Amino acid sequence: MEDVVDKKWGFEGNKELSSASVSVRGVLNKLVENIDVNNPHDQRPVITLARTDPSVFPCFRTTSSAVDAVADAVRSFQFNGYPPTVGVASAKKAISEHLSRDLSYKLSPEDVYLTVGCTQAIEIITSVLARPGANILLPRPGYPQYEARAAFDHLEVRHFDLLPGKAWEVDLDSIEQLADDNTVAMVIINPGNPCGNVFTRQHLEKVAETARKLGIFVISDEVYGGQAFGKNPFVPMGEFGSVVPVITLGSLSKQWVVPGWRLGWIVTCDPNGVLKTSGFLDCLKSYLDVTSDPPTFLQGALPQIFEKTRGEFFSKILDTLREAASVCYGKVEEIPCLTCPHKPEGAMTVMVKLNLSLLEGISDDMDFCLKLAKEEAVTVLPGFVVGLKNWLRITFAIDPSSLDDALRRIKAFNLRHAKKLIKD
Amino acid sequence: MEDVVDKKWGFEGNKELSSASVSVRGVLNKLVENIDVNNPHDQRPVITLARTDPSVFPCFRTTSSAVDAVADAVRSFQFNGYPPTVGVASAKKAISEHLSRDLSYKLSPEDVYLTVGCTQAIEIITSVLARPGANILLPRPGYPQYEARAAFDHLEVRHFDLLPGKAWEVDLDSIEQLADDNTVAMVIINPGNPCGNVFTRQHLEKVAETARKLGIFVISDEVYGGQAFGKNPFVPMGEFGSVVPVITLGSLSKQWVVPGWRLGWIVTCDPNGVLKTSGFLDCLKSYLDVTSDPPTFLQGALPQIFEKTRGEFFSKILDTLREAASVCYGKVEEIPCLTCPHKPEGAMTVMVKLNLSLLEGISDDMDFCLKLAKEEAVTVLPGFVVGLKNWLRITFAIDPSSLDDALRRIKAFNLRHAKKLIKD
Ligand SMILES: Cc1ncc(COP(=O)(O)O)c(C=O)c1O
Ligand SMILES: Cc1ncc(COP(=O)(O)O)c(C=O)c1O
Repeated sequence: MEDVVDKKWGFEGNKELSSASVSVRGVLNKLVENIDVNNPHDQRPVITLARTDPSVFPCFRTTSSAVDAVADAVRSFQFNGYPPTVGVASAKKAISEHLSRDLSYKLSPEDVYLTVGCTQAIEIITSVLARPGANILLPRPGYPQYEARAAFDHLEVRHFDLLPGKAWEVDLDSIEQLADDNTVAMVIINPGNPCGNVFTRQHLEKVAETARKLGIFVISDEVYGGQAFGKNPFVPMGEFGSVVPVITLGSLSKQWVVPGWRLGWIVTCDPNGVLKTSGFLDCLKSYLDVTSDPPTFLQGALPQIFEKTRGEFFSKILDTLREAASVCYGKVEEIPCLTCPHKPEGAMTVMVKLNLSLLEGISDDMDFCLKLAKEEAVTVLPGFVVGLKNWLRITFAIDPSSLDDALRRIKAFNLRHAKKLIKD
Repeated sequence: MEDVVDKKWGFEGNKELSSASVSVRGVLNKLVENIDVNNPHDQRPVITLARTDPSVFPCFRTTSSAVDAVADAVRSFQFNGYPPTVGVASAKKAISEHLSRDLSYKLSPEDVYLTVGCTQAIEIITSVLARPGANILLPRPGYPQYEARAAFDHLEVRHFDLLPGKAWEVDLDSIEQLADDNTVAMVIINPGNPCGNVFTRQHLEKVAETARKLGIFVISDEVYGGQAFGKNPFVPMGEFGSVVPVITLGSLSKQWVVPGWRLGWIVTCDPNGVLKTSGFLDCLKSYLDVTSDPPTFLQGALPQIFEKTRGEFFSKILDTLREAASVCYGKVEEIPCLTCPHKPEGAMTVMVKLNLSLLEGISDDMDFCLKLAKEEAVTVLPGFVVGLKNWLRITFAIDPSSLDDALRRIKAFNLRHAKKLIKD
């Protein structure tokens, strides 16, 4: 019999998948592989400032009430069956009520669709929007899951800038230049990953008006919804749902610090019903018919999770984030090769600019991150992953002593690689 | 300001989604809408023989050990973080050991990838296989999720027949005729949905040899793995992994009767490493980097679920299924317009042929199902959904008294609509 390995097989790879490989996860794996775990001279713990998952730290532990709600739901034997396509009714109701608290009108349970984390919400939205020829406007820097899914769905991506000098606001002029008749939507992330910014109400209103003028929907990624700890309060984009149809994405991941639970949602904030008349809702439902859902019992636990989680839990997390952001910003200022244009005021990450001219033998952001991982056992996300080459994305949402330790190591790394200035 | 509803929006629908709309869920929703819930003359409970979710019935209740495992995992606070892309290590080990019990060689934990139910496993596999120009061979009748996902991924579908006269075996000759250089894989479902058949070891070996000859991978959907209650024991396709690379899909949904938990897996059974050398594994991992995962704590619960579930639980479920299949087969024989070519010996459903010439005013299978839903409050899946027009797919996995009741109602429906024979 012909040898099975040498035989020619019909599968010859899938180039689309190899090209879409700039994912946070993919780069992270490379950094982690570069850490010198067998170095006998380096017994220091590995510290990651590259992921946004503080769930392992005691100061970011989720609330027992949420855990109890899940355990109760699974023990009830009421939620073992397939969920309805659009989600469990009680969960839809709970989410609509929860989100309506911050809005000047009421969402209905029918506006809510349950997803496997916000990650699947992104996957679903790009799939629904991707008709041949269509394009979508994405922020730069941004969250690369959007680019990856759009590429996969053959949805053309056009980037607009967030302006570091203007508190990372959307460059609205560039939006007008980028959009054309085939532009279906624009994405904003608020509070912002990767910039740690929080948009003002006035700015959101301008975004809404610009989008309305151009005839494009606004996808508002509010996975960090509520996590604003600076001067700007968090305002949901849904507030402007009557100006422009808004599709809000969210999840339990960040606010409850349980990214492993994988429970998210898509919510349509559209009092005028444009999403219905334009056929968007029908497409959304068709897609939901052929994709997987979040576990029924997790959906079933949602009402109790919302009801039983106390305000103190959220305020403690916010205090921790505020403090961490402040420590991070302060320490970064002491590192010569880094500059931070805007002190973080929300979410879990901040963008800092790398000044390569101050460093010796570091070619770019990826090189910086690979060497940093190897020499200091600290991981930081190179900016190119989020769209800004030679910047870094630093996650401050970790426990304070590790954050301090990590930033000291980055400083030491900087000093060791500093260009020797030739005095004349 | 221009009216927001009348305004022209960039989103103009997505034809691909409207065309992929033949989903089990979609048709089911139509049938359910047709049930006359407000009919004061019909107080009978609605019985669905159209879904494969018996979890609500006490005789199909899952085991408490599995429920305890999940509650313990979530209460441990050990599994709140994002899972690794390829899955939680202990879960991968548990699945590899669990599946190795039925194999003559050992799977490794690295062969296992965790998914959001078998539904997401299908979604992932079609996405990975879909390079431009590629085609995949699917069984007819089959499970329409494959067709829907392939259409969505622009993966051309070619159907081979399952032969009702030959215990629904694969028509191997037609496979040879259908395959060409662009054929990447073929799918089998064993035990079979929709036919309720179980392939013999000899037949699986022939499938493997045919696929090897043609240079195509075998995707073996074993979501009903182990659920064989007739004369043929369940043999995993992975047994022939050294003949041809086999990608096995499975989940907890059917065997543990917890489809709402949404925990599944992809397992590569490929001792020769063809999936690695051909680049399949790299593509798979790239795709997993940009898609959502099953909850970490559910993955974390898997070792305990496998370890603590007792053999009696499975044998009780099998006894219940065997009995139900037998009742179903017997009762169907008493219904003039239905014939069942093959008594079910596995899984949860059976295909029966509809003889329209014996009925008055019923135009096709969908018409039959819509009228049946309206008049008898019984839902049955029209065969066209699974690829066989004017057949029906009947689920026997429900509690015995409801099954009996439903089949009586179908008989009554048949008699009421029977063509009056003109005696000469
Ligand atoms: C902006 C943004 N959107 C979506 C996600 C994914 O969220 P989830 O964990 O709910 O899938 C993340 C995760 O970091 C994120 O930062
Ligand atoms: C053949 C087949 N494959 C896959 C699935 C989906 O399984 P899961 O519930 O694990 O998503 C089903 C569900 O009915 C099925 O019948």
